[in-house]
Amino acid sequence: MARGSRSIKFSQELIAVALGEAPADLAIIGGDLVNIYSGEVHRGEVLVKDDTIAYVGESAAHGIGNETQVINAEGKVLIPGLIDGHTHVDNNVFSELAPYALRGATTTIIAETTGLPFPTGYRGLVELLDSARDQPLRIYATITPMATANPKAAEHGLTVNQVSTLLARPEVLGLGESYWNPVFGSDQRVMTLIETARRMGKRVEGHSAGAKNNRLQAYVSAGITSCHEPINPAEVLERLRLGLFVFLREGETRQDLDVLAGIKDMAIDFSNLGLATDGVGPRHLVSKGYMDNLVQRAIDLGFAPVTAFQMASHNVARYFGIDHIVGGIAPGRAADIVVIPDLTRVRAETVVCRGKIVVADGKFVAKPRRHRFPSFMTHSLKLPKRFCADDFTVPVEHNADKVKVKTIDLRATAIKQEVVLEVPVKGNQIQIDIERDILKITAIERTHNPGQAFTGFIRGLGLKNGAIATSDAADSWVILVVGADEADMALAVNRVCEMQGGTVVVAGKRVLAEIALSIGGIITDSPLAETAHTLDAVQQAYQSLGGILPEIRVPLTFLTSEAIPFFAICEQGLIDMKRQQINRSVLV
Amino acid sequence: MARGSRSIKFSQELIAVALGEAPADLAIIGGDLVNIYSGEVHRGEVLVKDDTIAYVGESAAHGIGNETQVINAEGKVLIPGLIDGHTHVDNNVFSELAPYALRGATTTIIAETTGLPFPTGYRGLVELLDSARDQPLRIYATITPMATANPKAAEHGLTVNQVSTLLARPEVLGLGESYWNPVFGSDQRVMTLIETARRMGKRVEGHSAGAKNNRLQAYVSAGITSCHEPINPAEVLERLRLGLFVFLREGETRQDLDVLAGIKDMAIDFSNLGLATDGVGPRHLVSKGYMDNLVQRAIDLGFAPVTAFQMASHNVARYFGIDHIVGGIAPGRAADIVVIPDLTRVRAETVVCRGKIVVADGKFVAKPRRHRFPSFMTHSLKLPKRFCADDFTVPVEHNADKVKVKTIDLRATAIKQEVVLEVPVKGNQIQIDIERDILKITAIERTHNPGQAFTGFIRGLGLKNGAIATSDAADSWVILVVGADEADMALAVNRVCEMQGGTVVVAGKRVLAEIALSIGGIITDSPLAETAHTLDAVQQAYQSLGGILPEIRVPLTFLTSEAIPFFAICEQGLIDMKRQQINRSVLV
Repeated sequence: MARGSRSIKFSQELIAVALGEAPADLAIIGGDLVNIYSGEVHRGEVLVKDDTIAYVGESAAHGIGNETQVINAEGKVLIPGLIDGHTHVDNNVFSELAPYALRGATTTIIAETTGLPFPTGYRGLVELLDSARDQPLRIYATITPMATANPKAAEHGLTVNQVSTLLARPEVLGLGESYWNPVFGSDQRVMTLIETARRMGKRVEGHSAGAKNNRLQAYVSAGITSCHEPINPAEVLERLRLGLFVFLREGETRQDLDVLAGIKDMAIDFSNLGLATDGVGPRHLVSKGYMDNLVQRAIDLGFAPVTAFQMASHNVARYFGIDHIVGGIAPGRAADIVVIPDLTRVRAETVVCRGKIVVADGKFVAKPRRHRFPSFMTHSLKLPKRFCADDFTVPVEHNADKVKVKTIDLRATAIKQEVVLEVPVKGNQIQIDIERDILKITAIERTHNPGQAFTGFIRGLGLKNGAIATSDAADSWVILVVGADEADMALAVNRVCEMQGGTVVVAGKRVLAEIALSIGGIITDSPLAETAHTLDAVQQAYQSLGGILPEIRVPLTFLTSEAIPFFAICEQGLIDMKRQQINRSVLV
Repeated sequence: MARGSRSIKFSQELIAVALGEAPADLAIIGGDLVNIYSGEVHRGEVLVKDDTIAYVGESAAHGIGNETQVINAEGKVLIPGLIDGHTHVDNNVFSELAPYALRGATTTIIAETTGLPFPTGYRGLVELLDSARDQPLRIYATITPMATANPKAAEHGLTVNQVSTLLARPEVLGLGESYWNPVFGSDQRVMTLIETARRMGKRVEGHSAGAKNNRLQAYVSAGITSCHEPINPAEVLERLRLGLFVFLREGETRQDLDVLAGIKDMAIDFSNLGLATDGVGPRHLVSKGYMDNLVQRAIDLGFAPVTAFQMASHNVARYFGIDHIVGGIAPGRAADIVVIPDLTRVRAETVVCRGKIVVADGKFVAKPRRHRFPSFMTHSLKLPKRFCADDFTVPVEHNADKVKVKTIDLRATAIKQEVVLEVPVKGNQIQIDIERDILKITAIERTHNPGQAFTGFIRGLGLKNGAIATSDAADSWVILVVGADEADMALAVNRVCEMQGGTVVVAGKRVLAEIALSIGGIITDSPLAETAHTLDAVQQAYQSLGGILPEIRVPLTFLTSEAIPFFAICEQGLIDMKRQQINRSVLV
């Protein structure tokens, strides 16, 4: 049912509407309906009482009274509100996401909470969950296990008790993605969290990028229940066979659907497959839409329309155990319904969510609730001093012309390889080598031991001068800065601190572009279209400095994360993901 | 995972086995595997550690050590242990059911607990659940809402707190079937229980026999999540479309699969369909097997074999939210595996349950745990006196030759119609009319107000003399007796009491056949084959007295139940299910 908890009186009202003994609040008449339960498309009229469907059948006439709001869907098709089953919404408040999600036919999102807990801890996460309440779209969450090789993650991470408390919330559907290296290394804390989630009947999201054969089997045997990381049909099939729910991904970070669509021709069961974005940022939401885009792509790539709709609704709801609430149009379910022109054109004309019309004629007409975040979140950056160029030196003991340096080799895909490069030394300090695109990268702790920093080297960004700093550094509590110039690196960091979070592009001791992320240093409450625009400006400023990546935000953010192999940086050193160890020196 | 709760150490052991770093306890090699997740049949070898699968893939060689027990399945097929998703196990202790279930390829049952709570209350139900622990098969339960028109059911039924406590147990998967009349009548207690179950993320089993159109919609809108009552393909489709999980039933009470198989040719989604017995008694188990029989029937009727297996495993597990534990052969899942000769012959050669071989070469080789039931359950019949013929008189105030009497008209299908018959009166007492097959039927309270009784009339049993009494009267706390002779009725009741429960056939003041049901007056702990034999004797004795029903046990039991329309009897009178009222007089 739509409400987490409802009164007997409300059940009686639903029954009365179904029987035609009382009028509905809302009726949708004249349309065909995608029945994701039976897999059919059939004529279907709907009666809604408050936030819940009371009746779905051939004629809703018996429930329409004088006060009933009627949506005429003659010649159109009703689909259940779409679900994004795995996403990251770290950069925007829900009230700004809502209009774009709903116009994109998406009435439910299941959000990972990977970012915020690192800098703002349990309290920040609770606040984030609270900010999801009473929004015009439906927001569920999974709780990050905060699994990284950084030993502080265990020390400062959510405790097992805190995770249990969060998992007990009805809107929390599981433990967030557990990267396979920590699970595999039998990290005690992560293993306990996995077990806790399972005991509570909640899901355990997986992230088995690159795992296969016996290593994948071992990962699954530890209790993982899903994966959104396969990048070809063979990887989809291998995971499906092992009993994982598999999300086909198409979002801002990766666009895999083209390749993954190969599975549509396999004689397999599609009921444990879902569609998910794995995160869409403001620029993507503004230009490409949301789950409407994924389903449209799936249909265009040859999936049967009903299958495509099922993968973005019922299949996902059933996997998460919320199919009695969302994911289909049936009595007792949430009145989350989208009217589209026809079966192959996934464009939301009318969207009903929680029984209210939130999109009419393609326009967002609801009023999201603005959540007031407390000051511990809007003032989360605590650096003890202003930084200067000297804070970014990397000394070597023995003087030499060159040293061999373990360098992060960043690819456009955000994959980080280790490469050993000979880097020039001057005055016992390892130097930036702009010609060879070897820049400095520094992670500065900003939460528990503010100011603790580690500087290493990175190739692949293309900066010819200047620097970029950001407090939006995934799975971490650092300010991350990369640069071709130490003074610009210092300015960029100082500016991020002044703003209490954000991303800043600096060159010649001048700020070229910036975006404020003032909630936990990660989230902005600016209007989403404005944020998209600002992000464009950041990208252009980066490119104006020689930047070669077509999109800098995502690869930059993931430099601190073990979500993507094989290297990451933290305030303690370079994280070698294969060996699950931290190198405190850049030297080989 | 297989264990409700497992240690990190055990997860590490599973990982080690998957990786080939430690030997498995058990390996199944050489066979093909029905992959119910991907819908394929492919070569599949399995490694098991303790009670859990560690690996499923092309070759298990890396996990086989000197101590590993190896099952050679060369040329054979592995299927997941089958699940009976809706059954009643009221008459046999689990330790006696186990051998027959497991030989019938059934490793998991989801048992309704409709019977026992009426006579033995909350304590009896807890004891029943405890008796299900540590058996060689896996037993889950749903908790009966005890919904009947008898007002005492609300008074003496399980409280909302008790049901909540029971629902919190991991082996309890939902609220048991809520007959649609009480739900429909907005019975406050039942509505609250439905809401409680849903809030706890548990299922709400439905029983919508005969409901359709708006009434079915109203019933579903109240929060029901399944139904096992459709008796034709149209009813299946109507329920499926409304978002119900639909069980296709084939068991002792009804055999619907022949007719329902019509859906196999519909272009619909089968993932919300399951197979269930709705209860199989000893005679059925001995002669026809268990879920092996249902799946075999489904295949023989033309269902694709993989679909048939899915309907008896993964689909059901997924519906109940236990698909991370059972229902498929995958790493981290329970090692519940059945080896069958080939894809179309569902005969269990080897059965592994909880990682142990429990059936070898078709023979049961495990040792079920015998549960000791406490004396409040083995002495649950509390009649204050011995009954005599005079206790069964039905007086009328005004003398007449005949009166019009509301009579229960019993069909072989166990359906009870109301029929008004003119019945002879003698000495101000309404008489039995053997010629016209009008017998007396009496319900005697045996729990809360022992001795309170109501006598009515019934047609359709065929007895020419004698009587049958039973304490196995569904959804009630009565001893039920039907008879052609009041003295025999008294003797039958008294004998049932002497035995502290059972079914007794009496004629000429002599016991012809009897079966003891000494646990709660409902359950026997006798060997199941012996029980089947004794039930045969009861049936034969009934027929020797003129009995015309091909099977007397089930229709007799259901005379007190609202599970089957349209009439039932209780100690207070005749329950008119359509009007949800109790008639305290047999007169029109």
